[in-house]
Amino acid sequence: MYYALIMAGGTGTRLWPLSRRDRPKPSLRLVGEHTMFEHTVDRLAPLFQPEQIFVVTGAEHVAPLARQAPELPPDNFIVEPEGRGTAPCIGLGAIHLRRQAPESIMAVLTADHFITDTARFRQVLAAAAQVAEEGHLVTLGITPSSPSTGFGYIKQGESLGTMGGFSVFRVERFTEKPSLETALHMVESGEYSWNSGMFVWRVDRILEEFQRQMPEFYVQLAEVEATLGTAGYEATLRRIWPQVAKQTIDYGVMEGAQRVAVIPVDIGWSDVGSWGSLSELLPANEEGNTIAGPHVGIDTRDTLIFGGKRLIATIGLEGMVIVDTEDALLVCPRGREQEVRAIVRRLEEDGRSEWL
Amino acid sequence: MYYALIMAGGTGTRLWPLSRRDRPKPSLRLVGEHTMFEHTVDRLAPLFQPEQIFVVTGAEHVAPLARQAPELPPDNFIVEPEGRGTAPCIGLGAIHLRRQAPESIMAVLTADHFITDTARFRQVLAAAAQVAEEGHLVTLGITPSSPSTGFGYIKQGESLGTMGGFSVFRVERFTEKPSLETALHMVESGEYSWNSGMFVWRVDRILEEFQRQMPEFYVQLAEVEATLGTAGYEATLRRIWPQVAKQTIDYGVMEGAQRVAVIPVDIGWSDVGSWGSLSELLPANEEGNTIAGPHVGIDTRDTLIFGGKRLIATIGLEGMVIVDTEDALLVCPRGREQEVRAIVRRLEEDGRSEWL
Repeated sequence: MYYALIMAGGTGTRLWPLSRRDRPKPSLRLVGEHTMFEHTVDRLAPLFQPEQIFVVTGAEHVAPLARQAPELPPDNFIVEPEGRGTAPCIGLGAIHLRRQAPESIMAVLTADHFITDTARFRQVLAAAAQVAEEGHLVTLGITPSSPSTGFGYIKQGESLGTMGGFSVFRVERFTEKPSLETALHMVESGEYSWNSGMFVWRVDRILEEFQRQMPEFYVQLAEVEATLGTAGYEATLRRIWPQVAKQTIDYGVMEGAQRVAVIPVDIGWSDVGSWGSLSELLPANEEGNTIAGPHVGIDTRDTLIFGGKRLIATIGLEGMVIVDTEDALLVCPRGREQEVRAIVRRLEEDGRSEWL
Repeated sequence: MYYALIMAGGTGTRLWPLSRRDRPKPSLRLVGEHTMFEHTVDRLAPLFQPEQIFVVTGAEHVAPLARQAPELPPDNFIVEPEGRGTAPCIGLGAIHLRRQAPESIMAVLTADHFITDTARFRQVLAAAAQVAEEGHLVTLGITPSSPSTGFGYIKQGESLGTMGGFSVFRVERFTEKPSLETALHMVESGEYSWNSGMFVWRVDRILEEFQRQMPEFYVQLAEVEATLGTAGYEATLRRIWPQVAKQTIDYGVMEGAQRVAVIPVDIGWSDVGSWGSLSELLPANEEGNTIAGPHVGIDTRDTLIFGGKRLIATIGLEGMVIVDTEDALLVCPRGREQEVRAIVRRLEEDGRSEWL
């Protein structure tokens, strides 16, 4: 059996003021009419039936996400008491799936990325499942469209042949976010892809890697697993989880794992990590402006205007980002959208929680 | 008797999106807690009693203005059926005052300017009344603080002596809005002041000038005057007024008038004609930012942020203007605030009247 495990935990701080504590990134309507979570679930059909789709998220997000995907069985929402990084999140999902079907394959996906070519995405997921069947931990590598310094990179090693029309490579190594110079070299070499954070593997293989590489966590996980389906599960999880060390799947597992494969693909993937990357996803008008909501502009170019009901009037702007929400507004030049994080941090420090 | 006639007709298009058709400039709280109209009335006491203060405005503005200055007698609001420029507005006020007291002096003031030194303003109004008593049409000239190209200038001619400590000059000529080069020369010469649009004269003298220089209008005015205090007044005014030629007091009367005097004064006057001139009036913080409403900024300088309840977050801005209202938002660089007019024109053309 093939399962999809959607990690839906991130808040998407860099998309403030649209993203908020109670309106996290998966619930935002960034592209078109649908939320990021709706897109994430919708693009899995018909490869996955609703019963095969599991979601890991925080308790407070279950209800809104369930409303967005009412076709998913309520039991398929796995509640994480608190976020401990991607490794624990995936481990928790894996024990739930092992209970469903020990021999199954799982695709690890996130609810806050966007994919343009959804048909090809399902094709590569199908191919990856076949590679995973043989025991590989498969990562989906994104063919770089630019020398981004915002992603980790994966270097291809020897070829493992092709599967379903996709070339498969052994992973030579994972690299951290590079400098621009390094990124330029990597992209030119043609031997690197972006680490998208999407993985496909057998449930038993990933749990084996947890046991080998994160033994302390594996013991904690086993304690939770022993209570699955019993009345004691929730209390056990709530007791264990705060003790779990924070860890990412990349550091905790992938970098030291055995039999790691990468399938480089071009599926129109975007992490929609900032207002800048969103504006690359949305269509621009002839002045280069990307506009949502009512706008009147004079001499305005290459500007992202993400509004709602309010009219936004602009004069003499070039390369700006304007994001307008019911109760907060952001104005900054393109290229500095990353600093939105600092705005959120400032609000936290100042205790202005009404805007967090 | 000394009367003040406040012209409260302008909408203040360049202060969009704060100014609107149903929220014209005199009703805006631009400086401090009070509206421009409240400031205008308040600064006249104790020189004028409420009974001595008359207001000319449109029918739809009477109620809001009366609420702002409940001390003014309701009959002191003179309704202009439609705006025909400053000359007809002043003419209409003048016939009302002639009926009150034919020998009276009137100060013509506007409800959309700001004056910092209100004590000196009342002193010069008192002095001007004495000069007017002798038959002069007195204009208050503002000592230029910059070579502005946004105002007309008044050239001083021969000295007419001093009155109440103020130097009084015959007006040699009125000039239109100059080029920057001309403005520089005029300011350097020390012989010019800005035409503030504030005047003091005997009611009989200004009506005499209307009769001499705008005879057609004077006949129309006389027809209205004949019905003052009768049941036929309103209907007559409504019939006559659309036929009245549009004219400004400067072109229609002042440029060709006899015995015109100017008293140059420095009273901290501002026409608050644009967001830029408002920001000069309001205190700036140490980064040069002028801020109203909640704000969080990173690397933001010399920027006017005029908000309300919504949080405005800015990153990497210099010399910008951001004006946020309940239903519309303006973002533009300083120096282009004049083009707000073009935004309003565009909205009119596009029939987007909800934002006008």
